[in-house]
Amino acid sequence: MPGLSKALEETAAEVERTLQRLLPHAAGPEEKVVEAMRYACLGGGKRLRPFLVVQTARLFGVPDERSMRAGAAIEMVHSYSLVHDDLPAMDDADLRRGRPTLHKVTDDATAILAGDGLLTEAFAVLADPATHADPSIRIALVAGLARSAGARGMVGGQMIDIAAEAGALDLDVTGLEHLQALKTGALIAFSVEAGALLGEAGESERALLHRYAQALGLAFQIKDDLLDLESSAEELGKPAGQDARADKATFVGLLGAEGAREKARVLVADAVQSLDSFGAKADFLRFTAEFVIDRRS
Amino acid sequence: MPGLSKALEETAAEVERTLQRLLPHAAGPEEKVVEAMRYACLGGGKRLRPFLVVQTARLFGVPDERSMRAGAAIEMVHSYSLVHDDLPAMDDADLRRGRPTLHKVTDDATAILAGDGLLTEAFAVLADPATHADPSIRIALVAGLARSAGARGMVGGQMIDIAAEAGALDLDVTGLEHLQALKTGALIAFSVEAGALLGEAGESERALLHRYAQALGLAFQIKDDLLDLESSAEELGKPAGQDARADKATFVGLLGAEGAREKARVLVADAVQSLDSFGAKADFLRFTAEFVIDRRS
Repeated sequence: MPGLSKALEETAAEVERTLQRLLPHAAGPEEKVVEAMRYACLGGGKRLRPFLVVQTARLFGVPDERSMRAGAAIEMVHSYSLVHDDLPAMDDADLRRGRPTLHKVTDDATAILAGDGLLTEAFAVLADPATHADPSIRIALVAGLARSAGARGMVGGQMIDIAAEAGALDLDVTGLEHLQALKTGALIAFSVEAGALLGEAGESERALLHRYAQALGLAFQIKDDLLDLESSAEELGKPAGQDARADKATFVGLLGAEGAREKARVLVADAVQSLDSFGAKADFLRFTAEFVIDRRS
Repeated sequence: MPGLSKALEETAAEVERTLQRLLPHAAGPEEKVVEAMRYACLGGGKRLRPFLVVQTARLFGVPDERSMRAGAAIEMVHSYSLVHDDLPAMDDADLRRGRPTLHKVTDDATAILAGDGLLTEAFAVLADPATHADPSIRIALVAGLARSAGARGMVGGQMIDIAAEAGALDLDVTGLEHLQALKTGALIAFSVEAGALLGEAGESERALLHRYAQALGLAFQIKDDLLDLESSAEELGKPAGQDARADKATFVGLLGAEGAREKARVLVADAVQSLDSFGAKADFLRFTAEFVIDRRS
């Protein structure tokens, strides 16, 4: 995957700078929530979602300054979801990206509010004319983000996940695929869609990119399950082996490690194939699909 | 205030129908969060914010079908804020609108997710072409909602409120006004602004309406403090006398009951005066300002 690591690093650094700039500052007594929002968003993460926005947008010649804003907005939503998911009322996680989770360094109330603030701010970023001069494109971004993050997207997926972990729901592979399509797949798919919207892609291009994103998102989650099995806590930045101990429904649990690896490989091949008509300029998107199942954390 | 009660009731009934229609339905395993969103939003509340949207929009001849959608979106945001504020990690409230709070009938995780879902859905409603045919108006609504609900609006206000209640912050009248301007004032001001945006109001009209809304919002909060002192739990639909017991900074505490009443009266007079140039068609907005300090719950 020539150059992919460097491209990922460069985008991650630029995402960090963009978030630094776009996240609110405050000097008043409301400063605490703003600092919490910054802690949750800054200083880490693969920034895979913004990378997908930027790379997809480049297929259509969209300058990075523009796609980077949409990428940062999606990263705010991703960060908010991690903050809320980590709360004691949900997954009760102490570590995230190798650092204490937000509610551990502040408190539950601040973490809830910071999550709320990040979700809200993401829409402010998309609505700003700096994201795109055409309001009809900005409103399509807003509509897409709301759809992928809401009750029929990420929030719905987290609800299913909680029910499954509480034993209220028995998941087979189809059920687990539905969970993941909502919980992580929807926002990954929207990252690619955002790039296509900014690039004013045609219907058939959008359909191919959507197929790419859906396969990529599911492969990503299967690899997450495999990493929980294979990796050390140090590599993951959070405790390893959690899922197996929690008796959680995972692709590894349902298909076995080799079955899960094979399913991920098939999905990545499908993702790569969806990009055939885009030629060499889609190479980084192809490499990303391969990276998603080759990564070590 | 001839006809105000009837107008408020009619709007509340129409808001209920609109929310019934706009809130998501789900048949899958994510149903639980959708049901929780509906519980939080339906069946109660004065619906003051949608009433302000509708009445302001009528000044400019906007049909109710359109303004009702924006009002419903704002009510979703208001409802989400109540759900999150009521959580054990925040105000730990058991009763809301005379019913058990959402986390009491479900659990904290579901209440957090339902709040997240409502906030997200509000943006989906505003982004939909049914709200207004012109995307530049829809995007202005999205930007305004994000500004008023975010860290420099409602979320920031709740952060200050929590710090003040924890004793980490001593509030004088100016500090309390800042808190309220963010926590409740921003969304009330946006309700009026949304009506003006839908009506494509001019600069000077928007400035007058903004002055009206700011005075109204602060008067509303002062009256809330007075009601906590004066009313029974039955009238309020939640326990009375909570603020005094919690040694919370309130306008009543800082100004005395008579001082608070006088301040609210001055604000309402200012709100009413801001509407002078709108003539008789602004009567319901004037009556609303008077209602805000005369109400019993």
